[in-house]
Parts: sequence; structure tokens; C-alpha cells
Amino acid sequence: MGTMAFDAIETPFEKTDKIIGGSATYVAYAASNFVQPVQQISIVGYDFPQEELKQLQKRGVLTDGVIIVPDKKSFFWSGRYHLDMNSRDTLITDLNVLADFDPVVPEIYQGSEFLMLGNLVPAIQQKVIDQFKVRPKLIVMDTMNFWIESAWEDLKKVFTMVDVLLVNDSEARQITGEYSLVKAAKKILKMGPKFLIVKKGEHGALLFHENEVFFAPALPLEDVFDPTGAGDTFAGGFIGHLAKTQDISFENMKTAIIVGSAMASFCVEKFGVTRLREITKDDIDTRLQEFVHLVNFDISLV
Amino acid sequence: MGTMAFDAIETPFEKTDKIIGGSATYVAYAASNFVQPVQQISIVGYDFPQEELKQLQKRGVLTDGVIIVPDKKSFFWSGRYHLDMNSRDTLITDLNVLADFDPVVPEIYQGSEFLMLGNLVPAIQQKVIDQFKVRPKLIVMDTMNFWIESAWEDLKKVFTMVDVLLVNDSEARQITGEYSLVKAAKKILKMGPKFLIVKKGEHGALLFHENEVFFAPALPLEDVFDPTGAGDTFAGGFIGHLAKTQDISFENMKTAIIVGSAMASFCVEKFGVTRLREITKDDIDTRLQEFVHLVNFDISLV
Repeated sequence: MGTMAFDAIETPFEKTDKIIGGSATYVAYAASNFVQPVQQISIVGYDFPQEELKQLQKRGVLTDGVIIVPDKKSFFWSGRYHLDMNSRDTLITDLNVLADFDPVVPEIYQGSEFLMLGNLVPAIQQKVIDQFKVRPKLIVMDTMNFWIESAWEDLKKVFTMVDVLLVNDSEARQITGEYSLVKAAKKILKMGPKFLIVKKGEHGALLFHENEVFFAPALPLEDVFDPTGAGDTFAGGFIGHLAKTQDISFENMKTAIIVGSAMASFCVEKFGVTRLREITKDDIDTRLQEFVHLVNFDISLV
Repeated sequence: MGTMAFDAIETPFEKTDKIIGGSATYVAYAASNFVQPVQQISIVGYDFPQEELKQLQKRGVLTDGVIIVPDKKSFFWSGRYHLDMNSRDTLITDLNVLADFDPVVPEIYQGSEFLMLGNLVPAIQQKVIDQFKVRPKLIVMDTMNFWIESAWEDLKKVFTMVDVLLVNDSEARQITGEYSLVKAAKKILKMGPKFLIVKKGEHGALLFHENEVFFAPALPLEDVFDPTGAGDTFAGGFIGHLAKTQDISFENMKTAIIVGSAMASFCVEKFGVTRLREITKDDIDTRLQEFVHLVNFDISLV
């Protein structure tokens, strides 16, 4: 569940017109490499191309839960990246259809075992959870600074309903007031989620669970072309791997984070979902091996 | 080879009077856990405590190459860390004895196989290399932004004489004008060093060699008490492991970087070299295992 939308992106090197974006789009592109069907819950306007929905359907993405509003435009976001390709300014946010989003979980989605809640109004995230007659085996949620500031009480409630929380490092600090991510993680794990993933962009990601911690690096790349959607692609690879293997242990989540990092490393290579459309299972396997080489070492004790 | 000095450190939480510091001090404390003797080359003034030299000697550190100037004070640095414990302001730099440092490699040091050049004037680093009748098997050098700006031609010359260059991420960018560390590494590896280590503080370190790359995380810590000397301690653990194993392959350098990261993780736990004085081989082994757990994962292909 998340947005399906248009983005217009400026980087220090290039610029796009409106291209396909949205958190649920990236999640679906990434996850469908590992598990099918992916059952999409979102909302789009009359301007969202049928062709795009068809492309997703071909990858095993069900769109029964995607509301199409005939007289409104799709959500539109425009942003400009700074030279570090990490920070960005939002230029335009046109909510359009998103303003009235009242998600409905289709009957055929009931029984879903893995639920990914993309970044959206916390109350909407909760509404989706509430509609499942049987609680999914694993609920993963993303959020952002905007909701931490503007909907904190609602957000805290959703925290108690999920298994895995995905935030970036500055959000983890914002939620807890702790600069140390280890301290921040301890506090967040008391708020509900049993697992916490702290995304650090080019600096990788940390997975916290009880007293354990796992670190996954980002792949060092020559060029980051467009970071838009990297976090959602990471989430899609993460939950896709878990759904494929049906194993939600801490050990398997480590692998899932590496899979997510691998998917994110593709995402940033071209604008929007372009690269995610191209890659094959062989490409993914090759990249996973690069992660093995990147962090693998032999240790002999002192 | 490097400084042995006094530091006065302010963090957002605490403050020290003059305590023992200096790059060669940290390197010696770290490396002596893995290999002995460590043959120190440095310079101190009349105020440097004999007791400190004795402590080092007890750890197998030879001080024949440490010049003691009877009528001058030791090098003194004072700095204040910002809240992120990563960036800092220099408050005082009193060169004192360092202004006349003309290092002499004692005859008994000849035949040394592993040479660590701590951050200093590039011409002095070169002078040390030049004094070895047989080139050491492995020469590792550290440097800093100040020399990149003020002694670039000398520095470039030293680059051609060493095997491993240690810099932080901003220095790698400054040397090459490349923001991407992968691109920066490619350029630096053409300047002389066969191996490049890019230190990223709390974000870990990257090792580059030909077309290969290895990433070592920093251990996520609840508290960073004092980051002073962490980079030198890392260097000491790195070269200490290589000297102990007598293996300078890329594969073994991966392990050496993990060892360096483990040593650095101890260094920051207390002011100055305090923690490095306390730790045992068991402490080091336990911490190395924490690094294994931190990054180890099973991968099954798609």
C-alpha cells in the first residue's frame, strides 16, 4: 500500500518531465522479482497511464486495490537534488487524488501474509491494517519526518500495530531525541516494532532487534543518477525476499536487507523505475554476489 | 613514525587537561597487541613523562628512535568536538619540538618490514622512507587536508613511494575533485598507492585495490566518548595485523581493516589512550566476533 504517482526530478546533471513514481510503484517493481502476486493498494487519477498498470500486471502485480478517480489528477511530486545526491528540496507537492484516499482492501487480498505500508498519513496506514480479517504474518511500515511532526499521536499508535519500522537516520533521531542510533533504536523498539531498520542512504542500513544489530552497506557506485525511490525499492526487495522465503527470523531479515540494498543499488542507476524494468534475475544474482564480496572477510582470532 | 604529544580535548559532555596523545602513540598502543617489537620514531620535549615511555616499552615498543629535546616542550594540540562527535574545531596547535623534527631511523630499526607513516609534513615522511637501506615490504601512510592544501607537490611525491594510503572521505574528494568515492579511488590509485583506505568515521571504511572494493562498518556504539586517535588506532590495528600475519594480500587486508575497526571502537570508549591501555586479547577477540555478527549473512540466489 502506498502512492502511485508522477514525479518530476532535477539532479545536478539531468532533469525529467513527469515520470512514473510513487512508493507503491517502486515496492511493486522490486518485490515482484521475488514473489507473485503482489497485491497493490493505491489511488490514481484519470491521467495515470493504463499502459503502466498493464506493465505491472504483467509482472504479477494485482491492481484490484488501485482506485482510479475519473475526474482528478494523480499525486504529483517534484524535487531537486543537491550536489551530494542525498539531500533534496521539494519544489511541488500536488496531492490531487491523494487528498481523498480512503483505501479499500479487496476481498481477494484477504489472507495476505506480508503487508508493506508505504509512507502515508498514519491514519490511512492503520485503516489498511484494520481491514485485514486475519492479521498479516508480518507488517512493515515506512514513515517520514512530516508525520512525526504533524501526526505524532496517530503515528505512535501505528507503531504498536506493526512488526518492522523503516526510517532513515535523521527520523530515528527525531523520534527519540537521541543522537546515537543505538540508543535511538532501543527507544523505538519499546514503542511497538519488534524490528527497526535505519536507512542511511549511501552509508547503508542497520537492522536492530532486541539486543542484536546487523549492518548492510550500500554498494559503492561510480554514479548515483537518481536516488528517488531507492528507499521504497529497498523496502520492496526486503519484504519480497521475506515473502518468498516465508521466514521472518532475524537471520533471514539480514539476508532480506542485503536483497533490499541490492535492489536499491539498481534503482539509482537510472531515472525513476527505468532500471527496475530492465533487470533480470541474473542481474540480481550477480549484484548479490557483489555484496558478498564487499563485506566478506576471514577472521582469525588474536 | 608520527607524533607523541599532549592533547587537551573538549567534548559536549566532558573535558580533559593535557593528556597523552599523538599519532605514533595511538599506533603503538594498537599495533603492539599484534606484533612486537614496535619501533617508534618520534620526538618529544622535556615535559613528556618518562613513565609514559616506560609503559610503552613494557608493551614491546622500542623508543630508540624517539628524540627527547631537553629544552623544549612536546607538541600540544587542543580541540573541541561538536555535538555529532565527528567534526571538531582546533583550539590550539603548539608545534614546539615538532618544528625541528628531523627523524633519524636508528640502525637497529633497519630491516623493518612494515612502516607506518603517521600524518606529518610529507617531506618528513619521505625522509623516513629514504633512510631505510632496504625498502620495507609494506609502507602505509596517513595524511590530512592541511598537507593537501599546503604541500601538494611533496605529498604527490610521497604517494609514489607508498603501498597503502589512508585518508578520510573528504580528503579523498579534496585530492581528486570527485564526489563519488569510487571515482576518487580510481584516480588516487593512479597516483602511486596500490591500496587506498577511505575512512568514513562512524560510517566505516572502504578498501580499494585495482577494481576491487571492500567495506568494513564501524561498530554501532551507544556512546562515543572521545574520537581523538580513532583513525591512528585503526591504522595501528591494520598494520599490526598485517605484520603479525606477514600477508599483504587484498584478502588479508580485508581482515586487517576489520581488526583496525575493532581497535578504533575501543579507542573512542574513553578519553585518550585510556581504553587502549586496559583491553586484553580476550576483549579484542570478543569484539572481532561482534564484527562477524554485525555483517555476516547467508545469501541464497534469486
